[in-house]
Amino acid sequence: MLEFDHDTLGQRVRFASGKAAENLHSEVTRFGASAVMVIAAEAERDIATKVCRGLDPALVYTDVAPHVPVEKAEEARAAATEHRIDLLVCIGGGSTTGLAKAIALTSGLPIIAVPTTYAGSEATNVWGLTEAARKTTGVDTRVLPTTVIYDAELLVTLPAELSVASGLNALAHSIDSMWAPRTDPINQAFAVEAIRALKGGLQVIKADPRDSRGHERCLYGAYLSAVAFTSAGSGLHHKICHVLGGTYNLPHAQTHAVLLPHVLAYNAPAAPEAAERIASAFGTTSAVDGLTALGRILDAPTALRNYGLRESDLDEAADLTTPVAPPSNPRPVTKESLANLLHNAWAGVPPTSKEN
Amino acid sequence: MLEFDHDTLGQRVRFASGKAAENLHSEVTRFGASAVMVIAAEAERDIATKVCRGLDPALVYTDVAPHVPVEKAEEARAAATEHRIDLLVCIGGGSTTGLAKAIALTSGLPIIAVPTTYAGSEATNVWGLTEAARKTTGVDTRVLPTTVIYDAELLVTLPAELSVASGLNALAHSIDSMWAPRTDPINQAFAVEAIRALKGGLQVIKADPRDSRGHERCLYGAYLSAVAFTSAGSGLHHKICHVLGGTYNLPHAQTHAVLLPHVLAYNAPAAPEAAERIASAFGTTSAVDGLTALGRILDAPTALRNYGLRESDLDEAADLTTPVAPPSNPRPVTKESLANLLHNAWAGVPPTSKEN
Repeated sequence: MLEFDHDTLGQRVRFASGKAAENLHSEVTRFGASAVMVIAAEAERDIATKVCRGLDPALVYTDVAPHVPVEKAEEARAAATEHRIDLLVCIGGGSTTGLAKAIALTSGLPIIAVPTTYAGSEATNVWGLTEAARKTTGVDTRVLPTTVIYDAELLVTLPAELSVASGLNALAHSIDSMWAPRTDPINQAFAVEAIRALKGGLQVIKADPRDSRGHERCLYGAYLSAVAFTSAGSGLHHKICHVLGGTYNLPHAQTHAVLLPHVLAYNAPAAPEAAERIASAFGTTSAVDGLTALGRILDAPTALRNYGLRESDLDEAADLTTPVAPPSNPRPVTKESLANLLHNAWAGVPPTSKEN
Repeated sequence: MLEFDHDTLGQRVRFASGKAAENLHSEVTRFGASAVMVIAAEAERDIATKVCRGLDPALVYTDVAPHVPVEKAEEARAAATEHRIDLLVCIGGGSTTGLAKAIALTSGLPIIAVPTTYAGSEATNVWGLTEAARKTTGVDTRVLPTTVIYDAELLVTLPAELSVASGLNALAHSIDSMWAPRTDPINQAFAVEAIRALKGGLQVIKADPRDSRGHERCLYGAYLSAVAFTSAGSGLHHKICHVLGGTYNLPHAQTHAVLLPHVLAYNAPAAPEAAERIASAFGTTSAVDGLTALGRILDAPTALRNYGLRESDLDEAADLTTPVAPPSNPRPVTKESLANLLHNAWAGVPPTSKEN
């Protein structure tokens, strides 16, 4: 039985290496905007200058902070109102896109996003704001960028480790989409295409971080991963990572990289069709083998013990993560099964396709 | 080099066998509509009655004609205005959806589409109107149905030959999308997923036309085919069929079914990656073999000579089709190559993977 509800988010993607400035100019012209607000963190100033060549923005806004603190959002909204902004252009990673979304959330202003990482926020209708160290997130059509401009050449200067970490984060989006609560055949088709692209792209980046062809494939894969993930919702992997990251202050990218093969190994036997499609995207007969082989090529981290998690935390970690496991997870989750999974991930025991 | 522009059309799909009435009711409620116009041809009256259970439409409109004659569109628009309609619900095939689109084009009214064939019009922003035997088509966001409700059980009463013809028409959309002028990796991912679904679904329908699982897969495949096709545009196959159909008054479905394997055979050697992905969707090593094997299972027509095309027409047909071949077609098209292709399609010569 094929039964699903699927909301496709309407969006224009312009994808071309070396053409961000040209494509941004043509999109701004298409909008007929008279007062553009460019949002880019100080660290992205050089990229932003290059990308905005030929534009005459009414405001260049650089006060970007991680996780979009609500007071920063208020200041940015006031600045947009004061300058009678009618189009937002954000150039950067998740925090920069996040600030543009915070402005769009209350103003309804359209966004053109020019991503410089594989975060994927540009392809979602999810916003996030932080107040007093608490993050609130929500879903609103107004925050979905109207146009995304992808240019792989903007990513070739990223340090290789950052590219790999960001690419593995995107891979976690697509793999977890295969069994997340709102997964459907459309999300899965996107996710499989994404895995294929990311697997190839990450290997090229590892071999030569300045080869824009690797970044092209990863950008494409990260975009599809975000489309799949925003539709499918958080699966077991993201639920576990969210709790572990928040409770033990573990580094985001490493936590994802270590846990993903274990969650895949746990779910694969109970989701044989998903596992087979993931394997086929990796070009292997086993999904777990495909992912762990890629991890070895990329020197991905394999043990949470190296990132501040203590063996004595594991029992509590299993207690905390068990209740957040999605009821729809293909394989039932118990405290015992999670404790075993977390122990393997902590110790760096290689995941097997029959993890339990 | 990966370079493309892609417009994703925002749309909600609710896909569930046997749940059209329930899902329609919940969508109409979500819209908060106060005056619904239900459009369904006389032939669909029973289906429409079933699907509209629990609705209280302000107007039930049955004056549907093929190709949306402009005077019929004007009458329907006037009726919508007169009844202060705020939501259109169309239940039927391409002509019914087409009439709803004609009303939406001038009024901006939202559409909920409930398809009863594999035509795919419900997933596109393309409208068509006919005036004095001339068809005008255009693209407008306003005509894209806001929600599509798919219910395979509405199709189980279709005569088997009609299901197969309609399904092969959808297959032509997806295969031609692989090399159409605006093809891109996203369209291709959709198209490959569509081919896989249609191949499986059509075989189930052929074995048992009343098995809703076959219709489920075909509906899903037809939807994806339409999404891919509307984004990728008409490729060589549709350009040829359009000219032949118009000039020689050939039957639509049969013309598509006969020509598709020949166009695939023609393009495959020049589009090896597309051919390999099509083959993999068919589960064969050669794309052409996969398509012709499916055609044999389905008793698909193989020779245009059986549908009114004369051998003496072939030279003119080659003259007429050569100029409409897309310049971006992966294999260059000459009058000689088209004449050969058309001769094979006329005579029913089995296509080979090296047709030229």
